[in-house]
Amino acid sequence: MSHVRSRFDKPADELVIKYTTSLPFDWRLYREDIRGSIAHARMLAKQGIIDPEDALAIIKGLVEIELEITDGKFEFKPEMEDIHMAVEARLKAKIGEAAGRLHTARSRNDQVATDLRLYLKDVLTWTIESAKSLQEAFVGLAEKHIGVALPGYTHLQPAQPILLAHHYLAYFEMFQRDRERFTDCLERTDVLPLGSGALAGVAYDIDRGFVARELGFRSISRNSLDAVSDRDFVVEFMAAASLAMMHLSRLSEELVIWSGAEFGFIEIDDAYATGSSIMPQKKNPDVAELCRGKTGRVYGHLMALLTMLKGLPLAYNRDLQEDKEAVFDTADTLLLSLKVVTGMMQTIKVKPDRMLKSVDRSFLLATDLADYLVKRGEVFRNAHGIVGRLVSYCVKEGKTFPELTLDEYRLFSPLFCEDVFELTAGTSIDSKDNPGGTARRRVEEAIAAARTLLEES
Amino acid sequence: MSHVRSRFDKPADELVIKYTTSLPFDWRLYREDIRGSIAHARMLAKQGIIDPEDALAIIKGLVEIELEITDGKFEFKPEMEDIHMAVEARLKAKIGEAAGRLHTARSRNDQVATDLRLYLKDVLTWTIESAKSLQEAFVGLAEKHIGVALPGYTHLQPAQPILLAHHYLAYFEMFQRDRERFTDCLERTDVLPLGSGALAGVAYDIDRGFVARELGFRSISRNSLDAVSDRDFVVEFMAAASLAMMHLSRLSEELVIWSGAEFGFIEIDDAYATGSSIMPQKKNPDVAELCRGKTGRVYGHLMALLTMLKGLPLAYNRDLQEDKEAVFDTADTLLLSLKVVTGMMQTIKVKPDRMLKSVDRSFLLATDLADYLVKRGEVFRNAHGIVGRLVSYCVKEGKTFPELTLDEYRLFSPLFCEDVFELTAGTSIDSKDNPGGTARRRVEEAIAAARTLLEES
Amino acid sequence: MSHVRSRFDKPADELVIKYTTSLPFDWRLYREDIRGSIAHARMLAKQGIIDPEDALAIIKGLVEIELEITDGKFEFKPEMEDIHMAVEARLKAKIGEAAGRLHTARSRNDQVATDLRLYLKDVLTWTIESAKSLQEAFVGLAEKHIGVALPGYTHLQPAQPILLAHHYLAYFEMFQRDRERFTDCLERTDVLPLGSGALAGVAYDIDRGFVARELGFRSISRNSLDAVSDRDFVVEFMAAASLAMMHLSRLSEELVIWSGAEFGFIEIDDAYATGSSIMPQKKNPDVAELCRGKTGRVYGHLMALLTMLKGLPLAYNRDLQEDKEAVFDTADTLLLSLKVVTGMMQTIKVKPDRMLKSVDRSFLLATDLADYLVKRGEVFRNAHGIVGRLVSYCVKEGKTFPELTLDEYRLFSPLFCEDVFELTAGTSIDSKDNPGGTARRRVEEAIAAARTLLEES
Amino acid sequence: MSHVRSRFDKPADELVIKYTTSLPFDWRLYREDIRGSIAHARMLAKQGIIDPEDALAIIKGLVEIELEITDGKFEFKPEMEDIHMAVEARLKAKIGEAAGRLHTARSRNDQVATDLRLYLKDVLTWTIESAKSLQEAFVGLAEKHIGVALPGYTHLQPAQPILLAHHYLAYFEMFQRDRERFTDCLERTDVLPLGSGALAGVAYDIDRGFVARELGFRSISRNSLDAVSDRDFVVEFMAAASLAMMHLSRLSEELVIWSGAEFGFIEIDDAYATGSSIMPQKKNPDVAELCRGKTGRVYGHLMALLTMLKGLPLAYNRDLQEDKEAVFDTADTLLLSLKVVTGMMQTIKVKPDRMLKSVDRSFLLATDLADYLVKRGEVFRNAHGIVGRLVSYCVKEGKTFPELTLDEYRLFSPLFCEDVFELTAGTSIDSKDNPGGTARRRVEEAIAAARTLLEES
Repeated sequence: MSHVRSRFDKPADELVIKYTTSLPFDWRLYREDIRGSIAHARMLAKQGIIDPEDALAIIKGLVEIELEITDGKFEFKPEMEDIHMAVEARLKAKIGEAAGRLHTARSRNDQVATDLRLYLKDVLTWTIESAKSLQEAFVGLAEKHIGVALPGYTHLQPAQPILLAHHYLAYFEMFQRDRERFTDCLERTDVLPLGSGALAGVAYDIDRGFVARELGFRSISRNSLDAVSDRDFVVEFMAAASLAMMHLSRLSEELVIWSGAEFGFIEIDDAYATGSSIMPQKKNPDVAELCRGKTGRVYGHLMALLTMLKGLPLAYNRDLQEDKEAVFDTADTLLLSLKVVTGMMQTIKVKPDRMLKSVDRSFLLATDLADYLVKRGEVFRNAHGIVGRLVSYCVKEGKTFPELTLDEYRLFSPLFCEDVFELTAGTSIDSKDNPGGTARRRVEEAIAAARTLLEES
Repeated sequence: MSHVRSRFDKPADELVIKYTTSLPFDWRLYREDIRGSIAHARMLAKQGIIDPEDALAIIKGLVEIELEITDGKFEFKPEMEDIHMAVEARLKAKIGEAAGRLHTARSRNDQVATDLRLYLKDVLTWTIESAKSLQEAFVGLAEKHIGVALPGYTHLQPAQPILLAHHYLAYFEMFQRDRERFTDCLERTDVLPLGSGALAGVAYDIDRGFVARELGFRSISRNSLDAVSDRDFVVEFMAAASLAMMHLSRLSEELVIWSGAEFGFIEIDDAYATGSSIMPQKKNPDVAELCRGKTGRVYGHLMALLTMLKGLPLAYNRDLQEDKEAVFDTADTLLLSLKVVTGMMQTIKVKPDRMLKSVDRSFLLATDLADYLVKRGEVFRNAHGIVGRLVSYCVKEGKTFPELTLDEYRLFSPLFCEDVFELTAGTSIDSKDNPGGTARRRVEEAIAAARTLLEES
Repeated sequence: MSHVRSRFDKPADELVIKYTTSLPFDWRLYREDIRGSIAHARMLAKQGIIDPEDALAIIKGLVEIELEITDGKFEFKPEMEDIHMAVEARLKAKIGEAAGRLHTARSRNDQVATDLRLYLKDVLTWTIESAKSLQEAFVGLAEKHIGVALPGYTHLQPAQPILLAHHYLAYFEMFQRDRERFTDCLERTDVLPLGSGALAGVAYDIDRGFVARELGFRSISRNSLDAVSDRDFVVEFMAAASLAMMHLSRLSEELVIWSGAEFGFIEIDDAYATGSSIMPQKKNPDVAELCRGKTGRVYGHLMALLTMLKGLPLAYNRDLQEDKEAVFDTADTLLLSLKVVTGMMQTIKVKPDRMLKSVDRSFLLATDLADYLVKRGEVFRNAHGIVGRLVSYCVKEGKTFPELTLDEYRLFSPLFCEDVFELTAGTSIDSKDNPGGTARRRVEEAIAAARTLLEES
Repeated sequence: MSHVRSRFDKPADELVIKYTTSLPFDWRLYREDIRGSIAHARMLAKQGIIDPEDALAIIKGLVEIELEITDGKFEFKPEMEDIHMAVEARLKAKIGEAAGRLHTARSRNDQVATDLRLYLKDVLTWTIESAKSLQEAFVGLAEKHIGVALPGYTHLQPAQPILLAHHYLAYFEMFQRDRERFTDCLERTDVLPLGSGALAGVAYDIDRGFVARELGFRSISRNSLDAVSDRDFVVEFMAAASLAMMHLSRLSEELVIWSGAEFGFIEIDDAYATGSSIMPQKKNPDVAELCRGKTGRVYGHLMALLTMLKGLPLAYNRDLQEDKEAVFDTADTLLLSLKVVTGMMQTIKVKPDRMLKSVDRSFLLATDLADYLVKRGEVFRNAHGIVGRLVSYCVKEGKTFPELTLDEYRLFSPLFCEDVFELTAGTSIDSKDNPGGTARRRVEEAIAAARTLLEES
């Protein structure tokens, strides 16, 4: 670190090194750092800012260093402040003084912003792919269980019968929005900051467009001060990741509840469940629980970064270094959660009998009865009241709707006729025959549309 | 509320009414609620689900109710659970039983989601406009102060000289990204949920596309379960609002620091400052401080909603009611902050002399000196070391760079020649002649590009 | 506000007034503000800093103003910046120039800190009382249902049989810790900041101890800079409130799950449930859901204040004004939640039959079987494996433990004897005969201890 | 992991192992885990639940395993789920079947809660010590710079002159409250959960008091369900840590501002500053910036845990595993921050001349002038207005107070006399002669009281 302490009388305190060094985590950016440096060196040579031979030596050295790191042969020394310095120091050891020319027309401020954007572009691409795989799992499940009915819940109370496929497609929609958000974020991440220098631009005749093309960036940043101090793209990723984890937490909650003894709607595959150290009968939905719990972790990282950025004056401040561990852990958590949940969903065992039992037991057709009355001329609000009293009657008499006689029905409204007995879960489901409704033909249409959407993306 | 308690033996407890009622805050949705109901009534009549006369009576009644509320003549009774019930009860009082037909083929679950999306669409449109106004203020300031130089800071230490216009344009970029994010969010908000019923769709031959066109929605929701339980659009708005407030907090922090006695770079207009109750000399940047402080409030609302949504099973749960106060306060805070900060920036008084004094006093040309050596053949890392030692020398001797002799320069490197004295803040600034750099011609280009961007949107 | 703008040329902008005024929410501190001012006036007179007649006029005026506000006769004018100014302006209107002497030896900075501490002391006292009432409800339920068994859950899977009373006492413990935390917070809140002036102390011979005694503060602040910029007590309250809401959210989640059709363990009283606008059969646990949802709101306020305070230099900054709405809403939410949940628990209907059915259906005695083998010499880890295989066998054969023959047991271990059939939910429960265990006599002891704890506090 | 999967047909999926294993982070609890197991084994033997020889073999094995881990000779295999299993598996390899007896009368649920409490008790003790060291640094600085005056700021505007020692003692107070909060948290952490089994207690005649004494716990938990599902102590620690980091962030912000060129109040020692890779003149306050930034990280962990716990039904859920990384990182961050900031403060260089220059330049004596008039009979609010106009006059005339003539003073009030020129920063400071005020004798008293407080704790 001595080269950046040239006007200092003292070495840094040991605790300070421990406190300030980012190498223990930012080594993960080594590929991005080396890619960025190679593109920079190429540009410097092209523009005549450094000698072509120096550029060649630099590039050759960097390629070797990447291999050393990948092969686990690179020694990460704690006194190297960060991955940029670690790579540069090794380069100097390999090729001598020419290594020092690499940092011409560049600052760590624009270098680290470039590395981070390169990294996040990859993460976003993988995330979009992983979300798509999970969507495919839901469509697959919807197709497989197209005939299965279960209670739709509101307030976790059985409300109206729906198709399980319809339920799964609700999750398809959530992850579709997630994919869109990650795609929007990817566009805003796909901007090259290199060439912004420390904060003001650089005093060399550089070619930023060339570097952008070399590194696959769609555009270059428009303001150097902003480019080195902007972490919007990281926060935006974390906000989108928080929403995706929230969706996973809702699914996980359902899996936990549905796989329990009282519901018994599903069974999680052995490969995705764990046992208890003390209770031999247990089959615990640990993956779903952990996924639900990890939601907090991602929310926490979002809050950490928003807090860190609050009130920072321009341009670069060292506080920004705190972005890295948060973004790495968010990416790792989200990607692994998406993958493991996809696997869990693909292997889940559905128990249609238990679902149907729940459908029959509840008064799920109450709304249909009210609609029945409305179609025979009753005002909706009155119909609602009539059926409410009918339900009270059933609860007191210990009866379900199918067990009532027509006379009993007529105690509550003279509009009830023989055809009231034609109402079933099946007719109820198929009566929701609007776009987005749970009627079987609508759900089949939705599955087809979902397939198309997946194929097109 | 009696009509939704038809099977209950007891009235709700008084505390429960206080705890569960949303009328004290969701009355703000009355316009959206009435607009939605009118479109719904029209559709019901068009489809032959209700009589045209009933529809007419309903619409006429609703129009009158809107006027009553706007004119402050509407009595909001605490026992009305929410704005939907309050409007419906009033409608019943006005037109009698026909009012009860309005709720045909609709549930409060899809109704409230529709109201909230209508509301947020407006908020997003205003937000995008307000952010644009603030951007215009920055471009105006950049044009006005095009010749003013000040130190660019990193770590709040003077780093390199830059143009004030360049600094202002950094904020232009931030709010440009904010506008893009709000626009993306608007697209995802612009989806009609009505027709999803309680959760499963409705058992009537409705025309959702007609309602969407009536209400100006671009598309209709694709899954009824998702449509009633989705609040992604609210969270996405809050995440984008958090980023915008974070940008405002960075600006506010600078205004607080810059307007203080030690910096003295700017003076906030009297109309945007306040005094002290005890210290008569004080002119406090309260607006900037409050704006910085209100960042926490918006972050808090984001966290509140993410927490609320975590682990909720499908579909609608009453927890969702908590979305409203948070979104109202976020919208109010963000819109007012944007407006008041725009006014403050438009009237700010810049003190170029104080800025220039800071430029001269610091060793802002150190990087330029290093680049000077590099251009004469020195390796960058060595040049950095040489200038570091030169700075130490100056500090010890109490001199600034312009006060050094050539001999003193040459004590540190023989590459220094007479032309080292040609380096000034002006030459330094103009040497950053890359796209995004602070060179005057680049900044002028950036201003023109910003103007174009504003005109096109 | 003119009196604090004496060196300003311009009035404040209208938007600025709207942005900066706190009167719309801090009017709630009027009692505290007036109490504080009366004590201050008395002290000023006692110390000879103002005339006794002036003090009398001030006090009489303030008493009248409090009545005016309580009676709704006070006009809150928007141009009054805050409650302090509103009261002072009214005082001036009532008693003339003497009103101006009240602000001698005082600043709004120490005044508002005093008001807020007075307010929070009351809130903390009420909170501690409300938490105690909820604890009493749990002890009452434990006593009432002492004989009722249900499955204890881990991972929401039935794990081991427990007493319902034991379950309720778990919540007793949570709210006991909450009470302790609020009590600790109360101690740290009970410190008088008045006398700290704007930031440095005041230049008058005041008697801070006298004011502390008048207002019932246990001690006075020790550093004036800290006293006006400290909001630790507010954050500490919010952190304790977040934990209490978290406990309520766990209870609420259980109430939602337990009151659903599949579990059916409890029925929420009609007075605490609500219906559906479209589904007449629904009885929704809205209070529990809202309470769970409001957890997010309180977490959000905590985050808002932590964010607001981050990085603020000493001493007072206007950002601090943001503390008020957050603390008011946290207090309102927490107090109302505690009260309404207490009422809900007091009226809850337990269904022991449904609980017992769940106990019987699951393999809850698996751990007991493993312990049975251990007591007969098997190593615990082996015993765990044996019973695990036994459970698999039962699942495949569709049997429960009581339906197995001894021969079937012995297929898995020769250590099983006739007395294995003596194991029941009751013997299992009573075998957990350690302090803190679910054995009936331990639970009865715990109830007695809880009663003592409540009586002593 | 096979022993807890005895009824499962399939091994866990590889991704699932990666997702669920906690060994990569909870290995840090190995000391606590082994301490807890030794105490448990001793108790089991004492109670005759296992053979004394088995206990001896277990204890000897555990002691050896601790050494193996400390010496880096222990192989942490990824397929071991957590530290508890890793230790137990190794024990089995060392001593055979007797190892299996260790888990008698224990579950991982009460085991992990015990480990975590043991760990946190140590962390809390170190934190309290570290906070005390930082307080000592502040008292030392206060003593060293007792004569130094600087502007006290409100709104970051110079407000009134204060002693630097008074400023430092404000931080003493903050960390004093932090210490108290950590001490309260320690009391609530100091409770033994072992003996709670999986959730219901254990079916053995254990002696929980004995284990508590062996492990140094002050008391034992009172409810087994609560004991295994409670993480209040972790959240309470994080909330207290958030407040402590907030205090550090305020200090850090001041160090950043004060060490900048415009203020120049202090110089951070070279050992605590870092340079720039591109700007040789820079001396950046990186430690202060990172400390400020790390505040977000700790807030984030608090939010992560609150979110994770929200809505979890009793008792243990796997979500709870997420507590560990958050608490480890919070502890590491807080402890290191406290230490490194203590070192930075101890070596900080104060520049009294720059501070005094700022005192003189501002109108810091304005309040004193107002008080001067009040003491001569003017009403405070009028006096405030008079001095406000005086300040405006000075600003327009480009004068400071000492440069005014008595005639000029009298233009604004006839109460001004010759003795107005006796007002100085020194007299102003010493006039704040109340408890908690900045008068030198009060500050000296406060230093003495602080010393006493430190000695007594």
